[in-house]
Amino acid sequence: MDTNKKRLLTGDRPTGRLHLGNYFGSIINRVKLQDQYACFFMIADLHMLTTDFDRTQDIKENILSIAIDWISSGINPEKSVFFIQSKVPAHSFMHLIFSMLVSVPRLERIPTLKDKVKESRFSDENAYSYGLLGYPVLQAADILAYKASVVPVGEDQISHVELTREIARRFNYTYGEVFPEPRAILSETSRVPGIDGINVKMSKSLNNEISLSHSFKEVRDRVMKMVTDPAKIRLTDRGHPQVCTVFSFYNILAAPELIDQVKYECENGQIGCVACKERLSELVNRLIEPIREKRFELERNPSGVWDILHEGTKNAIFTSNKTVSEMISKMKLNY
Amino acid sequence: MDTNKKRLLTGDRPTGRLHLGNYFGSIINRVKLQDQYACFFMIADLHMLTTDFDRTQDIKENILSIAIDWISSGINPEKSVFFIQSKVPAHSFMHLIFSMLVSVPRLERIPTLKDKVKESRFSDENAYSYGLLGYPVLQAADILAYKASVVPVGEDQISHVELTREIARRFNYTYGEVFPEPRAILSETSRVPGIDGINVKMSKSLNNEISLSHSFKEVRDRVMKMVTDPAKIRLTDRGHPQVCTVFSFYNILAAPELIDQVKYECENGQIGCVACKERLSELVNRLIEPIREKRFELERNPSGVWDILHEGTKNAIFTSNKTVSEMISKMKLNY
Repeated sequence: MDTNKKRLLTGDRPTGRLHLGNYFGSIINRVKLQDQYACFFMIADLHMLTTDFDRTQDIKENILSIAIDWISSGINPEKSVFFIQSKVPAHSFMHLIFSMLVSVPRLERIPTLKDKVKESRFSDENAYSYGLLGYPVLQAADILAYKASVVPVGEDQISHVELTREIARRFNYTYGEVFPEPRAILSETSRVPGIDGINVKMSKSLNNEISLSHSFKEVRDRVMKMVTDPAKIRLTDRGHPQVCTVFSFYNILAAPELIDQVKYECENGQIGCVACKERLSELVNRLIEPIREKRFELERNPSGVWDILHEGTKNAIFTSNKTVSEMISKMKLNY
Repeated sequence: MDTNKKRLLTGDRPTGRLHLGNYFGSIINRVKLQDQYACFFMIADLHMLTTDFDRTQDIKENILSIAIDWISSGINPEKSVFFIQSKVPAHSFMHLIFSMLVSVPRLERIPTLKDKVKESRFSDENAYSYGLLGYPVLQAADILAYKASVVPVGEDQISHVELTREIARRFNYTYGEVFPEPRAILSETSRVPGIDGINVKMSKSLNNEISLSHSFKEVRDRVMKMVTDPAKIRLTDRGHPQVCTVFSFYNILAAPELIDQVKYECENGQIGCVACKERLSELVNRLIEPIREKRFELERNPSGVWDILHEGTKNAIFTSNKTVSEMISKMKLNY
């Protein structure tokens, strides 16, 4: 890892295998960013607990699977640090210290909170846990533990980075300068729909995903199930690509010429939906094939992947402990 | 430390030197309890941050001073564990895990919260920090980290122990049995008034205290300042001990015969307030003298006291890490 580069932090919750939504939403962006920044890629198991504290039985398997997905997709663990959040003590310590520096009303104003409470599987007041309210405080700890200057985020996470900046300022003002104020970079990502329609986001919990670990046949089956323009019944019917899930995948995956061709053929009744899906399924499989192969290779050597995670976690502990030492010294808690 | 005994946890915030209010409110109780239980005595520096995060400049000095006060008052560090909360990683880790197991509305119903917000030095929304709301969650972590079965508390803290029991139950129910449910024991303590009147609690922040480290002269000066019955002006006036601060100190400090005698003399105009205070000041000094001497001795060897704290903290880390390992294993976060 090049220590002269600016640091970047981002990560995924270990909720399951990564899918095309993750791939186009963040992974390909990370593949680019890994050369530009000193990247810390976090498997956010503690964040997962904020909404799914009672679903930990598959967490270990999911961690391994995410690391495999990352490597298979082209994120290079020799360039970047892969680590597991819960194994780095700085995160919980900084979460606790920062909890004194942010008010409850401020956290209640974070726009993502209401959605999270609404989406909760718990119907009673347990839908609104103390940990859920403090989720952005934990994110501030994640980012500032590594003094990351750059955080790639989706639109909905911008307010979290803003809170992180406030906490950094408040700490620096109260105790003395320790933290840089991180900057959110909005990744130019494509929003990938689910196979069930262009207005639904791809998500494992909705079972509408095409995952990076799906087999050739699974990919084909899922593409064949995609919702198309309901007005196009026969091959010769004129279709409306703008309402078609299949077309929105071409839009993300295909070369510009092919996109134009598909559009023309569809709108002029020159291709049927089945054939159009066959072609898309090949395109998706061509994208996933090398990932699948690399995946297959890594799956046969899980202990090698765990070694990468453990090594990275050691590095993360070392780096974040330096930050904690600085904090403790500025706070005069060094005794 | 006798490991067959049930465990007890309690502690003090490092806000300054201990006074007679602390002595009669908790210290003499601890001197008794230390033989009955395996005691963990915590210097709660993280708790102090919940209300005074910006006042850390004297925290190191105050920690030393509290440890000296404890030992001087008869708490034996060879029988019990003295430790510093912020140096034990289990507290912040467990605080974070438990934050998922308790709802915001539940925390908002804790009766002490409103007072704490009201008493805050911060006038704006910063009076209500996320850390302040989570203060009882941190207490649950403190108690459960050592699997304490017994927690000596004042009346106002009973609701915190009740929350701790709920968190323990919720954890055990969700992940499997790890924690015993702790029991609050209400200490038979005397509420010590300030020198400024019987309706005010003794408190360093009100500067109405007699501290265990006051000199002979300081003790005398403070006793001489005590508010007495305003109706008793001359020696021969009949006094009303029930409204007299001096008498309430006799009530706490003196032998029953002396209490009766003071009452009789006051009510029958046989003693003046100055003489009555002189006698009380001697009584207080007689109590404090051995503490002061021991204090003086320990103050000349601060590194010896720090050694005790560091040794105890090591013990606390060892003990609480065992609890954390059990938690992690039950939660299936062992990877």
